[in-house]
Amino acid sequence: MTQLDTRIRNSALRQRVTDADAAAALIQDGMVVGMSGFTRSGEAKAVPMALAARARAHPMKITLMTGASLGHDLDRTLAEAHALSRRIPFMSDPGLRAAINRGEVMYVDQHLSETVEMLRTRQMPGVDVAVIEAVAITENGGIVPTTSVGNSASFAILAEKVIVEINLNQPVTLEGLHDIYIPTWRPNRQPIPVMHPETRAGLPYIPVPPEKIAAIVVTEKTDSYATIQGPDDETRAIAGHLTEFLLNEVRQGRLDTTLAPLQAGIGTIANAVLHGFIDTPFHDLTMYSEVLQDSTFDLMDAGKLVFASGSAITLSEQRFRQILPRLEDYKPKLLLRPQEISNHPEVVRRLGLICINTALEFDLYGNVNSTHVAGTQMMNGIGGSGDFARNAYLSIFVSKSTAKGGAISSVVPMVSHVDHTEHDVDILVTEHGLADLRGLAPRERARVILAHCPHPDWRPALEDYHARALARGGHTPHLLEEALSWHVRLRDTGRMR
Amino acid sequence: MTQLDTRIRNSALRQRVTDADAAAALIQDGMVVGMSGFTRSGEAKAVPMALAARARAHPMKITLMTGASLGHDLDRTLAEAHALSRRIPFMSDPGLRAAINRGEVMYVDQHLSETVEMLRTRQMPGVDVAVIEAVAITENGGIVPTTSVGNSASFAILAEKVIVEINLNQPVTLEGLHDIYIPTWRPNRQPIPVMHPETRAGLPYIPVPPEKIAAIVVTEKTDSYATIQGPDDETRAIAGHLTEFLLNEVRQGRLDTTLAPLQAGIGTIANAVLHGFIDTPFHDLTMYSEVLQDSTFDLMDAGKLVFASGSAITLSEQRFRQILPRLEDYKPKLLLRPQEISNHPEVVRRLGLICINTALEFDLYGNVNSTHVAGTQMMNGIGGSGDFARNAYLSIFVSKSTAKGGAISSVVPMVSHVDHTEHDVDILVTEHGLADLRGLAPRERARVILAHCPHPDWRPALEDYHARALARGGHTPHLLEEALSWHVRLRDTGRMR
Repeated sequence: MTQLDTRIRNSALRQRVTDADAAAALIQDGMVVGMSGFTRSGEAKAVPMALAARARAHPMKITLMTGASLGHDLDRTLAEAHALSRRIPFMSDPGLRAAINRGEVMYVDQHLSETVEMLRTRQMPGVDVAVIEAVAITENGGIVPTTSVGNSASFAILAEKVIVEINLNQPVTLEGLHDIYIPTWRPNRQPIPVMHPETRAGLPYIPVPPEKIAAIVVTEKTDSYATIQGPDDETRAIAGHLTEFLLNEVRQGRLDTTLAPLQAGIGTIANAVLHGFIDTPFHDLTMYSEVLQDSTFDLMDAGKLVFASGSAITLSEQRFRQILPRLEDYKPKLLLRPQEISNHPEVVRRLGLICINTALEFDLYGNVNSTHVAGTQMMNGIGGSGDFARNAYLSIFVSKSTAKGGAISSVVPMVSHVDHTEHDVDILVTEHGLADLRGLAPRERARVILAHCPHPDWRPALEDYHARALARGGHTPHLLEEALSWHVRLRDTGRMR
Repeated sequence: MTQLDTRIRNSALRQRVTDADAAAALIQDGMVVGMSGFTRSGEAKAVPMALAARARAHPMKITLMTGASLGHDLDRTLAEAHALSRRIPFMSDPGLRAAINRGEVMYVDQHLSETVEMLRTRQMPGVDVAVIEAVAITENGGIVPTTSVGNSASFAILAEKVIVEINLNQPVTLEGLHDIYIPTWRPNRQPIPVMHPETRAGLPYIPVPPEKIAAIVVTEKTDSYATIQGPDDETRAIAGHLTEFLLNEVRQGRLDTTLAPLQAGIGTIANAVLHGFIDTPFHDLTMYSEVLQDSTFDLMDAGKLVFASGSAITLSEQRFRQILPRLEDYKPKLLLRPQEISNHPEVVRRLGLICINTALEFDLYGNVNSTHVAGTQMMNGIGGSGDFARNAYLSIFVSKSTAKGGAISSVVPMVSHVDHTEHDVDILVTEHGLADLRGLAPRERARVILAHCPHPDWRPALEDYHARALARGGHTPHLLEEALSWHVRLRDTGRMR
């Protein structure tokens, strides 16, 4: 058998191998295209580039749906080729973001567990073509994903046609890592049969009738590496406050030292916080999360983490080079699921997760903005943070207390955009301290947040606002004419004051 | 057997019958008290009155937790007696509301499915005494609730002591109506075994060790009646738009004429909308809701509704007098569950509910305010609307386009408080039309909302705001200095302009 034969194990399908241009030609102007890819991992790499090239020569636009963000600047490339009319459900690329904020691309920002539910019930236009990166195709046409599952399974199952990108650079050892479970259809839906992070409920491949696989493209490009930065003094302080809080939960008898399954959002701060667990008495930890980042493997190597379930693996270059060759060692402790399952409210609530997500800003009452700068400019989508925060056992949001060298306070009188309401936020942490908001009314939340979270440079202004708002009364005291004034100044001057 | 013997079937417990003052004496200053009661039905009636009398004579304060709102002005009476330091998780009483807005009572506004989860995990101070209205106590000490379940089951199970109010005026035919299922404990929690609205998963009574029942008080007061108003031209128009929309969903093949299980929030508009289904081709409907209102029984009597699951029955006086004597006829088609289960995200998402809730106001982008007038003054709590809207198959919010005789527009540039983010709102309806927001980006949502929802008197001002905001750009265009100006005018003048 040639290498390709071991990768495409259904012999009839080997006839469908073609080049990226020919495969991309299956995608027509106006189509809805569902592509693999979640937080820069496992995305289709060749077909979208061919599509962008074609769009530059012959203008065309598609609706692009993915799991989450794409690597290799694909979102930027497609946006600059004016190939996107609509983008669903997540993005974090600066080039695409600019096009969205100019109103050129319609971006539909969804809870990541919900996109395929909307597709399945035909409440959004259906997927015409799915483009899925794979390690292999099984004898019966099953598609074995690579480093992410994301929405790939439902895209492939629901699409009219499927293009598979077999990536020879993604190791065959990835096979067996995936657990593809698709919820049964209503009105006869059964419980999602995931009782623990390590529960296997489905198949190790995406089941697709072989005849639906219309083209296969062979590629060799590795995933993009994670762009997260290492811990710094501030993220270490955040990790320290959180550890101290969790140790107190153990002392109070609410948790034991194995804690509860952990979820951590993508990004530098959450990664640093998880990494910080290495130097704690916590042990036999598990994760039930979206993205498995460097810190997941740091904790495993330190003997702290016994199992991690996610929807994607996204690593820095250094960790990638260390881990990929040793994947077989990690495999018994890892599992990748569709994002509908990794983020499913039913499972999140059942397992009772400790969820750590990043806030762009939060206000005196604990409302969180995850997405919009100054209320109007999209930064990144909400991602899975809402899926987790709403149903968490403990919903924790972390943020540095300031941004842009102190020009911006992350603690504001009123957030300029709400992604997570006060009802969904239990704990807020900055490098200055931790606010435990559980069981508190808004006026009490404000006192606790003011006492623990703001940067000292900003605390007096926040206290002044709050005191004057309190004088006006109300369950959630505010000075409406002033509530967003910090953001007006930010918009106009680049500084909040 | 005397009447009381048939109501208190455990003979040893008959020794615990006492009067309300003696029972109330079990409640000490500073205690956490969990009382039955949900949307004016099934609340403990005698002990809270005795407690208020005592607090007037000898100042004391408690934390009061319930299912939802209480009848018989109990919240007002307790607030005026200064007996409440803290109130959780819902209220809608004008007297208590005023005390909350003055900052005298700390009100913790929670998703109704979450309160007992917080208690069970000891993330809020535990219940010292539970006070539960009951139809009967079984031989083994099981408490049979009356017209609501709410949080009664978990309050009784978790409390140190339980006071039972046996209400002789609540018909014994209520026995058998309840289905008390309590989720198993993490980390070994099993799926909530509710697959259809009619699924029975638990016991017909609240299981409590008899020795925990510290006092029994016998009462005879009926529930308060619902205060909702009948349909008017505007609610009929809202119902008409919604019916037309749902008929189109049927034509598109996304629903059949049995629709999907229905949830409707408490109140005049949602009640009128459901009532409006009588004159539609829809049939064999089911409900999986919180409160079963007049419209539930209207639809059953019209042969439209085959089963209704809720957590409480709250009726107008007229319907109460008609239905209570005929309860045995309705019983096979009714079921009352703990609010943790009626509102459970897992079950809501599994069943795929069509959820109809009421907005206080909504904005150009589809964010919904359910709770705060002018951003600061608490009106009613969020209740179960978040439990349902987040996980609904279709999340619908209804509102009249104006309030206070036209002084207030319910469609505003930016909501002054966010309870439901744009991510959780599929459909908005006023008497002027219906906005279908599924799969749309914010700028598109604004166009659809502007075209269908505002009152004509307010549309030009909204369009003007939106046009000027668009000129500034952004994913969610806003003029931050003006975004809340309508609410500033409302606060200062009682009118939005």
